[in-house]
Amino acid sequence: MKLVHDPIHGHIELDDFALRLVDTPEFQRLRRITQLGLAFLAYPSAKHTRFEHSLGTFYLAKRIAGYNPGIEEGAVYAALLHDLGHYPFSHTLEVLYQRHEENTKWFIKHGEIGDVIRERYSLGEFLRLLKHPLVSGDIDADRMDYLVRDAYYTGAAYGLVDLDRLVRNLHYDGERLIIGEKGVMAAQSLLLARSMMYPTVYQHHVSKIASSMLVKAVELEGIPLEEIRLMDEVDLIARLRRSENGEVRELIAAIDDRRLYKRVLYSGDDPGEKVIFELKNELEGEFGHLATVDYPPKPKFEEKNAFVAVGDGLKRLSDVSPLVRSLVELKDTHWRWGVYAREDVMERIERFLRTFLG
Amino acid sequence: MKLVHDPIHGHIELDDFALRLVDTPEFQRLRRITQLGLAFLAYPSAKHTRFEHSLGTFYLAKRIAGYNPGIEEGAVYAALLHDLGHYPFSHTLEVLYQRHEENTKWFIKHGEIGDVIRERYSLGEFLRLLKHPLVSGDIDADRMDYLVRDAYYTGAAYGLVDLDRLVRNLHYDGERLIIGEKGVMAAQSLLLARSMMYPTVYQHHVSKIASSMLVKAVELEGIPLEEIRLMDEVDLIARLRRSENGEVRELIAAIDDRRLYKRVLYSGDDPGEKVIFELKNELEGEFGHLATVDYPPKPKFEEKNAFVAVGDGLKRLSDVSPLVRSLVELKDTHWRWGVYAREDVMERIERFLRTFLG
Amino acid sequence: MKLVHDPIHGHIELDDFALRLVDTPEFQRLRRITQLGLAFLAYPSAKHTRFEHSLGTFYLAKRIAGYNPGIEEGAVYAALLHDLGHYPFSHTLEVLYQRHEENTKWFIKHGEIGDVIRERYSLGEFLRLLKHPLVSGDIDADRMDYLVRDAYYTGAAYGLVDLDRLVRNLHYDGERLIIGEKGVMAAQSLLLARSMMYPTVYQHHVSKIASSMLVKAVELEGIPLEEIRLMDEVDLIARLRRSENGEVRELIAAIDDRRLYKRVLYSGDDPGEKVIFELKNELEGEFGHLATVDYPPKPKFEEKNAFVAVGDGLKRLSDVSPLVRSLVELKDTHWRWGVYAREDVMERIERFLRTFLG
Amino acid sequence: MKLVHDPIHGHIELDDFALRLVDTPEFQRLRRITQLGLAFLAYPSAKHTRFEHSLGTFYLAKRIAGYNPGIEEGAVYAALLHDLGHYPFSHTLEVLYQRHEENTKWFIKHGEIGDVIRERYSLGEFLRLLKHPLVSGDIDADRMDYLVRDAYYTGAAYGLVDLDRLVRNLHYDGERLIIGEKGVMAAQSLLLARSMMYPTVYQHHVSKIASSMLVKAVELEGIPLEEIRLMDEVDLIARLRRSENGEVRELIAAIDDRRLYKRVLYSGDDPGEKVIFELKNELEGEFGHLATVDYPPKPKFEEKNAFVAVGDGLKRLSDVSPLVRSLVELKDTHWRWGVYAREDVMERIERFLRTFLG
Repeated sequence: MKLVHDPIHGHIELDDFALRLVDTPEFQRLRRITQLGLAFLAYPSAKHTRFEHSLGTFYLAKRIAGYNPGIEEGAVYAALLHDLGHYPFSHTLEVLYQRHEENTKWFIKHGEIGDVIRERYSLGEFLRLLKHPLVSGDIDADRMDYLVRDAYYTGAAYGLVDLDRLVRNLHYDGERLIIGEKGVMAAQSLLLARSMMYPTVYQHHVSKIASSMLVKAVELEGIPLEEIRLMDEVDLIARLRRSENGEVRELIAAIDDRRLYKRVLYSGDDPGEKVIFELKNELEGEFGHLATVDYPPKPKFEEKNAFVAVGDGLKRLSDVSPLVRSLVELKDTHWRWGVYAREDVMERIERFLRTFLG
Repeated sequence: MKLVHDPIHGHIELDDFALRLVDTPEFQRLRRITQLGLAFLAYPSAKHTRFEHSLGTFYLAKRIAGYNPGIEEGAVYAALLHDLGHYPFSHTLEVLYQRHEENTKWFIKHGEIGDVIRERYSLGEFLRLLKHPLVSGDIDADRMDYLVRDAYYTGAAYGLVDLDRLVRNLHYDGERLIIGEKGVMAAQSLLLARSMMYPTVYQHHVSKIASSMLVKAVELEGIPLEEIRLMDEVDLIARLRRSENGEVRELIAAIDDRRLYKRVLYSGDDPGEKVIFELKNELEGEFGHLATVDYPPKPKFEEKNAFVAVGDGLKRLSDVSPLVRSLVELKDTHWRWGVYAREDVMERIERFLRTFLG
Repeated sequence: MKLVHDPIHGHIELDDFALRLVDTPEFQRLRRITQLGLAFLAYPSAKHTRFEHSLGTFYLAKRIAGYNPGIEEGAVYAALLHDLGHYPFSHTLEVLYQRHEENTKWFIKHGEIGDVIRERYSLGEFLRLLKHPLVSGDIDADRMDYLVRDAYYTGAAYGLVDLDRLVRNLHYDGERLIIGEKGVMAAQSLLLARSMMYPTVYQHHVSKIASSMLVKAVELEGIPLEEIRLMDEVDLIARLRRSENGEVRELIAAIDDRRLYKRVLYSGDDPGEKVIFELKNELEGEFGHLATVDYPPKPKFEEKNAFVAVGDGLKRLSDVSPLVRSLVELKDTHWRWGVYAREDVMERIERFLRTFLG
Repeated sequence: MKLVHDPIHGHIELDDFALRLVDTPEFQRLRRITQLGLAFLAYPSAKHTRFEHSLGTFYLAKRIAGYNPGIEEGAVYAALLHDLGHYPFSHTLEVLYQRHEENTKWFIKHGEIGDVIRERYSLGEFLRLLKHPLVSGDIDADRMDYLVRDAYYTGAAYGLVDLDRLVRNLHYDGERLIIGEKGVMAAQSLLLARSMMYPTVYQHHVSKIASSMLVKAVELEGIPLEEIRLMDEVDLIARLRRSENGEVRELIAAIDDRRLYKRVLYSGDDPGEKVIFELKNELEGEFGHLATVDYPPKPKFEEKNAFVAVGDGLKRLSDVSPLVRSLVELKDTHWRWGVYAREDVMERIERFLRTFLG
């Protein structure tokens, strides 16, 4: 057994099997994948990585399983590996490639880590566990860890959650994690924390702009999935810096030096995917790398997974907590799409948009 | 004026001049220089960088200056830039090259940042301010920031210091920062925090071993000063991964995958520089990259800079605080030098050492 | 100038005038008035007092005034004294007597502290300042201090608020504190914190039950206003312990030993004041001290005071933040009234209630 | 099982037996015994009580026992009750009466709590467990709790200790708690925290002066042991306020209003008990309640109980850690005795002392 020091959970115990999973190149690669991508350009201290988040998720999953003998042991190791497939800068590049969950499966099938897993589990069994409610609900070990951790590293004052109370009040019914009545306030505060972190940290405009520049650079560089999913952030940045395409080199230099594009358009009105698709094409044709379009997915609120035990029955959390209900209703409030451009071409692009959008 | 969010100090105010210094490529490069080098291999969350430490040092320097009108304004900007010249992985590579302070001067003379400085200060004047007691004593803004920050990011329980009390009780006498009587306990706790952080974090054996491997890799790669001082960590790692020298590639792969060398020798008895020099040469000749020698500098305790105002006179802090006196006496207690080797050659190297050291 | 150590704000500076106000018997009495009354029976560590809360409110008021030259100096001292008139156990006994604000005025008119005030201010002027928006809005120094402080001392995970950001973004327009756009999220998190603290701490059923027992004891003891407003918690408890009325002695002994009444009725349906008035009378006649009725005021949400600067105009916070709007709508969700009784008479009282309420 | 919310340890689980011990009048009385006596006159927020400290000690004792099956279950309940016998204001009055440990035994023999204990343990057995190393060493659950807790409630920056690491590295050998090698740094930081808390909090001069005034008042009031050991702080203060002795009433009013005596003499030179005894008598005769003598016991450093497991053998902590060795040597550095007096008689007493001490 090994102890890993962690500012969020104190000491995280790794048993021998967990340690062998951690000691694979695939897992160690997560040390070089920042948890919040380019958010450090807005919150300088947010340089924490998927590595410690994965350990933290494992820790919480193990504690929850400790109160729920019905949770199979493998689910806890699956929680450890749930983020294995992230691209450099985490979610940033998912807009260009398949979702990271697919890469997680790919690494498990083809990586050294698969050999370790197979000593105990069949691959099919383990892949199924990656969707276990421990890491795939609205109230799960994954989210419990990242909200508190992201708040700690950014210094945002929104991530205080009574994790201990929540851990003690999650009951596995063979299918879902049910929130016990005494855990409702803690669960509610977790969802509130998320709703505060979304606009202030996860969708901070500085991070969105820089991310759209990185996406553009990777797009122009044309890196195939087979390559990028093996990369860490060193590989990717080094590749972009050495690109034969001057536009790519300019973009990565601008990110490095924090000379970020400005907002030409920033709006909560969704023009629809079709318009965005056309806009991207036309902007690309007209301005190349000088303008970017940022059209993020709407925030999900997977309340289907959040049930509360009330007396003998179950209720949805949103039925028990009017505050959560209003969070569900308000989930799109802070969503924004944007068009960003290099400062010297802002006016031209503004004119272009006026024509294009009418 | 701009506010930067910081988990340690809350919000750091950057005035226009500070912001223009920060917005240079030389300063932005610090975002890609980890504060504690490879310590994240022991403390996974220690991925914070010289960038936020520099902002924090500026913040404290400005507060101290606020209580001391005698401190010239330029000294506060010098505090902001005091770490500009760090190599990738901070102190790790200083054993191979000149001290980072020399590079700081070089950047100021030759970088874009020099142009900004010259708008307000003569270069000679500014270079002199880099040695201001605000950042060059035993009790200074630099140390006050990094101890508390390093403790926060590692999660080590040793870095709690009453910074506010210390800031309020540092009096500049034109030459030194004198500790007011009410600040003695806080100053003492700062030095105690350092003495606890030294063995548990700064000289953690995992970090020492990985660092010695990186030093060996850079040595074998033969990167000249002119190149390395311009590099960030992406540049360096990418260069080592692409090396034409297989030994270099093996070393960086081992660091990446955390397959670290083991301790063949680990001792507090100092054999002297001459023996170490010969040992390095012979080991190099015999075993190449398979063994490394780690011979760190002894910890300094610059008590010459720590004075306390007692009544009308001045006393050394170590004369006022017996605990500090014992810290000075004990400063070498945790110093260790070591020989580390790849696991499969440990026995051979052990035999070699037995012969060599007699 | 004197520095007072405070876990929430670090060091609180008291200038000479503030210090002289603090050094009066009236202000020192606040050291013996717990901030949260009997909440320590649910949260053992919640023993903090109105004394430190008053200092904390002063600290925040002074900081806000520092950013707003339009705020007259006296308002900051009024903030220091805003809670001077609290009864023992803070709000608990307000149901029997006039509001504590009236006592604050009374102390200022008749106490030693009034002599200090009159050196600088006319009484009329100062009394007016007690209603200054610094301490009488939804977003004010009073609430900013107590939410964060109460969370710290109870250990509740709901009181993390970015006070620094809020302080920097409150703009006084001569009449109100307007929230700047950059302070909206922090203001929102303050109101959310309040909405979480209300059911979990401020209206915890243990605290409500014990409070209703204390109210009953004081009622039976028949202490006149002229006496109770001069008392601290030592005076009150000692008086009740020595009462000639056996019912009173039994009640205070039960509180001391934490043998609390049980809930016979606990409901969010408001029967109206008239029904409650009759119920109290009948229960009193039939069961004396064995049953208590707890009918707390509905939580206020003084959104009239919370304005946000948007562009050139002002908007209500609830118009800008849908989350705050839902908080306003939901403000009664956690309100409960109750009938509590000594365990051995619960059944009898249950029968009585069934008849009385139909 | 019941959960108690605690800011230091999160949630403290009380099993049924612990809960029944807690639910006795003797244990509930601890809610009205402040942990740090009159220290709140220096640190306003230090109003925490022996109640929550006792729960915290129980929590840590239970965790340590969880790693050490050799520790009998009863020792953990003894840890819960180790402070049962404290007088009002904790250690303050021990100078006048027997040590609180004797009262703890007395309560267990004669209180309701003894009936609960006897259901499981013989009294003799249980009384013996009160001296278990879990609560009677230099490194024990008692000290681990109070240092961290006192730092939290005062806001002093000296009490950060890695409790989790320490708990995991204390090994019971049937006689003592041995510190495992990995716990040495944490143990050292515990002792350092104590050495910092001693002068800044535990022996703060404001607290010392107020305490000496309270001691004088109680002495003049002449309360017998049989009465005072049953009192809580309400009883004691109410008694002193109602005293027939005007000197007593003046003293308690001065404490209440924080009109504290001033230091006429404050010295680290120990004149010996005999001189102090005479001085007290003469001062008493000459000046009555107008002057007090404060002659605290020297701080103990029970290093006999602190052993470290090194390889196969045991070493004293002070042999392993030079820093601890110097703490032992320095333990008296901050010890002070003093003569304090009402401001208007200071000069007369100063003259008296000059004559008396020569």
